[in-house]
Amino acid sequence: MASAPSVSSSITVRMRVRARPTAVSDLTTAIERAGGIVTALDVTESGQARIGVDVTCATRGEEHAGQIVEALEGLDGVLVERVSDRTFLMHLGGKLSIESKVPIRNRDDLSMVYTPGVARVCEAIAARPADARNLTIKRNTIAVVTDGTAVLGLGDIGPLAALPVMEGKAALFKRFAGIDAFPLPLATTDVDEIVRTVVAIAPAFAGINLEDISAPRCFEVEARLREALDIPVFHDDQHGTAIVALAALTNALKVVHKDLAAVRIVMSGAGAAGTAVLKLLLHAGATDVVVCDIDGVVHTGRDGLDPSLRWIAEHTNPRGLTGTLRDAMAGADVFVGLSAPGILTGDDIATMADDAIVFAMANPRPEVDPDEAAPHAAIVGTGRSDWANQINNVLAFPGVFRGLLDAHSTSVNDDMLLAAARALAGVVSPAELNATYIVPSVFHPEVTSRVAAAVERAARATGAAEYRIGADDAAADLG
Amino acid sequence: MASAPSVSSSITVRMRVRARPTAVSDLTTAIERAGGIVTALDVTESGQARIGVDVTCATRGEEHAGQIVEALEGLDGVLVERVSDRTFLMHLGGKLSIESKVPIRNRDDLSMVYTPGVARVCEAIAARPADARNLTIKRNTIAVVTDGTAVLGLGDIGPLAALPVMEGKAALFKRFAGIDAFPLPLATTDVDEIVRTVVAIAPAFAGINLEDISAPRCFEVEARLREALDIPVFHDDQHGTAIVALAALTNALKVVHKDLAAVRIVMSGAGAAGTAVLKLLLHAGATDVVVCDIDGVVHTGRDGLDPSLRWIAEHTNPRGLTGTLRDAMAGADVFVGLSAPGILTGDDIATMADDAIVFAMANPRPEVDPDEAAPHAAIVGTGRSDWANQINNVLAFPGVFRGLLDAHSTSVNDDMLLAAARALAGVVSPAELNATYIVPSVFHPEVTSRVAAAVERAARATGAAEYRIGADDAAADLG
Repeated sequence: MASAPSVSSSITVRMRVRARPTAVSDLTTAIERAGGIVTALDVTESGQARIGVDVTCATRGEEHAGQIVEALEGLDGVLVERVSDRTFLMHLGGKLSIESKVPIRNRDDLSMVYTPGVARVCEAIAARPADARNLTIKRNTIAVVTDGTAVLGLGDIGPLAALPVMEGKAALFKRFAGIDAFPLPLATTDVDEIVRTVVAIAPAFAGINLEDISAPRCFEVEARLREALDIPVFHDDQHGTAIVALAALTNALKVVHKDLAAVRIVMSGAGAAGTAVLKLLLHAGATDVVVCDIDGVVHTGRDGLDPSLRWIAEHTNPRGLTGTLRDAMAGADVFVGLSAPGILTGDDIATMADDAIVFAMANPRPEVDPDEAAPHAAIVGTGRSDWANQINNVLAFPGVFRGLLDAHSTSVNDDMLLAAARALAGVVSPAELNATYIVPSVFHPEVTSRVAAAVERAARATGAAEYRIGADDAAADLG
Repeated sequence: MASAPSVSSSITVRMRVRARPTAVSDLTTAIERAGGIVTALDVTESGQARIGVDVTCATRGEEHAGQIVEALEGLDGVLVERVSDRTFLMHLGGKLSIESKVPIRNRDDLSMVYTPGVARVCEAIAARPADARNLTIKRNTIAVVTDGTAVLGLGDIGPLAALPVMEGKAALFKRFAGIDAFPLPLATTDVDEIVRTVVAIAPAFAGINLEDISAPRCFEVEARLREALDIPVFHDDQHGTAIVALAALTNALKVVHKDLAAVRIVMSGAGAAGTAVLKLLLHAGATDVVVCDIDGVVHTGRDGLDPSLRWIAEHTNPRGLTGTLRDAMAGADVFVGLSAPGILTGDDIATMADDAIVFAMANPRPEVDPDEAAPHAAIVGTGRSDWANQINNVLAFPGVFRGLLDAHSTSVNDDMLLAAARALAGVVSPAELNATYIVPSVFHPEVTSRVAAAVERAARATGAAEYRIGADDAAADLG
């Protein structure tokens, strides 16, 4: 699994080059020989003696980029003037802007947008707080909240360094679901403080998306916020992952003609994501799940189980397995990994049942090398974009929140998650479904709308929806 | 001071009208007879027997709007189908949107905006936190924070009902200074909680604008936040008002050829705004200020002074006045009111010195009716848009924060406020300056840029600016 050059590590090299017939091909040849992939080239300036050239190429990372630049600098008649990092350029100045939706052209506009006109709008909301959903940004705005303790694979990097991820998430919310999401990385890792802070800032928001908060604190934060707030609280690392994993498994089982209630499932990982996936699998009807963590199979006889592991032991492992993950794999139909890189080999996958399904979702390096797993499994999925079957949360969270907001939902529950997973699975038509296409592309035009519709229906069915037809227009009508 | 019809109380009436030659003029005549002002009329549909008409008109408020609608309904052959409130229509769905500044068209874009590319940006900020000003929204983003306890003239209406004002403020920040401002009305009125919350949410922001927090809590909130945070904390009700009042007074004194250090100033109001105006006047060189509150002149011999009044007593009133506001007015050159409506009459103004300056800024009803004051004063200013010399905070806060953000300022101090006031005064050229034009229009194109430049200079001069030339581009460069 040697990493290939990635667009996410692209550099743009600005050079002055001595004019000659091979001026451009010398550059591209040098880059390709150094292992880079040229993705764009512009001659920015052309003179008798010298030309200016900007070349953009994908690299395998910073060290590799340095080697490519060195190769270019080694060419006769080439002066490297500047090297910029394309990803950094995209992030310069931040990735979000806040725009006014109303024109402010003159005093009349001012008098309606701000004082004195706004006072009447305030009074209307004071008299009927539900009107805030009509007359303020609360209708379509959520907070993306983190404490920066479990950011991507980077760990506890703090709130400021986590901000680019939260901005990216907010950008995805807008791109895929038209939702106004604002990033709030918090300068505290104390559970009480996080809960207090989110409760305090909640009035402007119709939902809270928790993000990259380390386990087990994330469980308590979520549970207490759900208790305290009258808006849905969704922890994407848990619930988003659970939805997409269940959707992928639903379709994978169709491909191999197996039934969720009958298959043996082995899970690796009992952290935030693992626990959430487990709970949704059980809610969806799975009956034989064996969960493993770093100490092996979780079972009721194991010593030192914390409350979360105790719960797992009591609700899984009906055949009373003990031992290691490796032991548990033998004869399993499904492996779901949300744990650590490279803990299994192709040989381990070979011990599974026929037509095995392997979801190795540790990021960026999966639990088992997909190349090694593939010969022994019917279906392999990972979290990576450079493999088929990318099990990617972007498939879930935009549609889920779209549905929650459209329903004016006061909460989020397992039935909604289940509905979201089924809707997401349904986006792949029977004709499209195959072992390398069990989840749709994140750019599939129907992903958000179908997930949203399913969540909205589930919100109504479970009594969480507050939206009443016609309420929208009422606030602007007099009498 | 009977109120005139205001655009901020406009209604749009949709009607079906029997077709006849006077169909339209019957409507406009009826509206004008009822005291409304027609601002727009559309024939939306035209048939043999009936036409559809939308008429928009300014009213004096809800009751008056009802009378106008009644007048229209009383017309023969007119069916009122719907009445909408133009101000409410402008607020429908909220006044802000959050937009992505980066395109997300395909997997390559995703890989740079979000994982895996974003991880390198996070790591860069973790290694050098100052780069957050280059690589995240922190560069240009501020929070508009309130607890909803002193909103406009409405008082303690709570955070949700305060949200339309905070959104409006954010819209003004964008319109006048290109600043991304996000409204955060807090579900707490406890000073400790407010401080804790703002400290917790601070990482994403380069500044905090406090808004509509009642005195005296606002003093403590501001002081503690300034102590705790490394970004500027500005309470617009205090500091914005102080800047604009000082700018207006600076120009008014030029018109009457008097000197700030020599004039006798009487202030009414020792609340948040009054205290801030007083402090800036003293910082600017005023020497003879007498402050009055509901109990009359503040002096060192008065019983029961709280710490804030004690400070005022010790720093004002050099001639040791006692008695009532009315007593203090005799012989004063300047009156600055930030207190309560209708507490002075024209006769009181008549006791002032020649060429008196009267700023009656209580909103919406000034301390003295400007019509009554005008015969006895050289210059009258109010907070109202329907009078000359509107002393309006919109003249200050956008430029102040623009300057603070451009300087990467870690704080805000009195020198910056003073610089802002002088720059704002300077926007009115000597040729333009006269008794009815002492402050520029909020739409004057140079207001923001000149205030911003002055604040940025003052930030550098006082050591609060962290911005280093060239630092911006460095983050995107390799090596």
